[in-house]
Amino acid sequence: MITIALDAMGGDHGPSVTVPAALGALSKEPTLKLVLVGRQEVLAAELAHRRAPEGARLTIHHAPEVVAMDEPPAQALRSKKESSMRIAIDLVKQGVAQAAVSAGNTGALMATARFVLKTLPGIDRPAIVTTLPTVHGHVHVLDLGANVDCTPEQLLQFAIMGSILVSAVEGKPRPRVGLLNIGQEDIKGNETVKKTNELLRASRLNYVGYVEGNEIYTGDLDVIVCDGFVGNVALKVSEGLAQMISRFMVEEFKRNWRTRLAGAVALPVLRAFRNRVDHRRYNGATLIGLNGTVLKSHGGADVVAFEHAILEALAEVDHRVPERIGGELGSMLGEGQVA
Amino acid sequence: MITIALDAMGGDHGPSVTVPAALGALSKEPTLKLVLVGRQEVLAAELAHRRAPEGARLTIHHAPEVVAMDEPPAQALRSKKESSMRIAIDLVKQGVAQAAVSAGNTGALMATARFVLKTLPGIDRPAIVTTLPTVHGHVHVLDLGANVDCTPEQLLQFAIMGSILVSAVEGKPRPRVGLLNIGQEDIKGNETVKKTNELLRASRLNYVGYVEGNEIYTGDLDVIVCDGFVGNVALKVSEGLAQMISRFMVEEFKRNWRTRLAGAVALPVLRAFRNRVDHRRYNGATLIGLNGTVLKSHGGADVVAFEHAILEALAEVDHRVPERIGGELGSMLGEGQVA
Repeated sequence: MITIALDAMGGDHGPSVTVPAALGALSKEPTLKLVLVGRQEVLAAELAHRRAPEGARLTIHHAPEVVAMDEPPAQALRSKKESSMRIAIDLVKQGVAQAAVSAGNTGALMATARFVLKTLPGIDRPAIVTTLPTVHGHVHVLDLGANVDCTPEQLLQFAIMGSILVSAVEGKPRPRVGLLNIGQEDIKGNETVKKTNELLRASRLNYVGYVEGNEIYTGDLDVIVCDGFVGNVALKVSEGLAQMISRFMVEEFKRNWRTRLAGAVALPVLRAFRNRVDHRRYNGATLIGLNGTVLKSHGGADVVAFEHAILEALAEVDHRVPERIGGELGSMLGEGQVA
Repeated sequence: MITIALDAMGGDHGPSVTVPAALGALSKEPTLKLVLVGRQEVLAAELAHRRAPEGARLTIHHAPEVVAMDEPPAQALRSKKESSMRIAIDLVKQGVAQAAVSAGNTGALMATARFVLKTLPGIDRPAIVTTLPTVHGHVHVLDLGANVDCTPEQLLQFAIMGSILVSAVEGKPRPRVGLLNIGQEDIKGNETVKKTNELLRASRLNYVGYVEGNEIYTGDLDVIVCDGFVGNVALKVSEGLAQMISRFMVEEFKRNWRTRLAGAVALPVLRAFRNRVDHRRYNGATLIGLNGTVLKSHGGADVVAFEHAILEALAEVDHRVPERIGGELGSMLGEGQVA
């Protein structure tokens, strides 16, 4: 039995998304237990509305406060000790839950998780990692915004954590790791990237070398490493472009009655296409490098997407990702490198 | 009459693309003169093959050497003084041509252009700028890879150059300028970005503040500024994602006879959609900040795309972009800032 604490108040939609997502996850995973953390009366009403009683596998844990989506992380950490986000993470610290999932404010979630759970030995700073779809499957990219400036040693740690995550959850023995750069030649890039390239070459990772931005989507890699500034831009640029393409497509099919008719005929194909790049299937970014599993859901996640984040957290607990990072970090470093 | 020198040997396809693109541009622009720079016999044969004679508006300028697509920039600069790329830029320096266009190696083109033409007074380093499509039109993004590490002062210069470019070529009096960051709050970002934000606020630009990666495509801005590492990743991530989406779409429509039929019905709409995001219409990146106009075409550009780059160069010469940057730079800086 694995217990996951949900910040049931977080995200743009709060309990109207988190509660049905919780019920969906419970119906799919018989060994899962969920704790809904948030305002007792709000969550009880939401459950009653859905005719879903509390029970052995679904409980409410009262938390009187809520962290606002735009609240500064330091303020949330200092003054919201009774927030649903904080208490969900406290439950992981106390061993009551094995993971926490929140669609709340990313900065506050990272600050709280670091403060409460602490980083694993040998890890300087946690990173944010998520999967993105590729031509042949998907790829893990980190860091996505937790660390704007990174040292080569931190980037090496990100690479090791990403490799262990893929190896643990997907059973791949030697995940292919690439370092994001602006060209594949050795002379390209800044000093940090060049030094990181040396550290990665000296490590025991399956390091393939520099990769360029387009290679995120070609599917030839399992893990791509970059600093949080670059990773965040790459992620948001992708979101923006996908939205624009989708909008243009809808506009073209709605242009007149002929195009609407063509759209009706093509609808099953367009739906199949849409499912294939459905960002909800990629919802859930892991705050990796902590003593515990914490998943960040997109703030605007719907029920399907939030449920996906819960199931991702379950998989990571199930495959003991934090324990494996703690145990394998040293052996992944090259000779002469210390954890 | 405006004369443009074409590096007719550059790019993945060389004269088989550059020559027909030149003929296309000449037929559209009666005041344009083109010089094809490259191997005399190769270019003469290509013109003969197309039954297009040399004349007052189309001449060949012999250049015996070619810079390879993977040649290190320093080596190209040092040892290929008779290359088609170098001679095209020399023609601009000598005043024979007002602009040069090349689909060759970006690093070599930038190194050669900087060495031969020099940067404009007040500009520390040239940048690479291109347009990207947006929901409402397009946006200019710079730098796209010429400068991996930038000072706040350089980023300010990029913003000014981008603003003058948009204002000159598109006639917009106050282009909206954004600074790429990983959040809109003032506390986000690294020290360089924060310092640049202050310089931009103090400038006389129409600066709207921080923007995130997705806002490249929302169309609310005219110019987006970032360092060359981030800009290059943003551009290539976009290329990779667009290719993946296009591939998925084709695969879904080719799945079976039903989907093929649906595809046939939807074809006019799919074509209209494709034209709308056609990257060839955005081909041509300007090496901005030089004493002269130099356009870099995508190496894989086809005839339509290369022709577009020629016409973009023409527009920039026509609107006197380098002269305006030289003349207006000082007045765009805020009080207490020196060019």
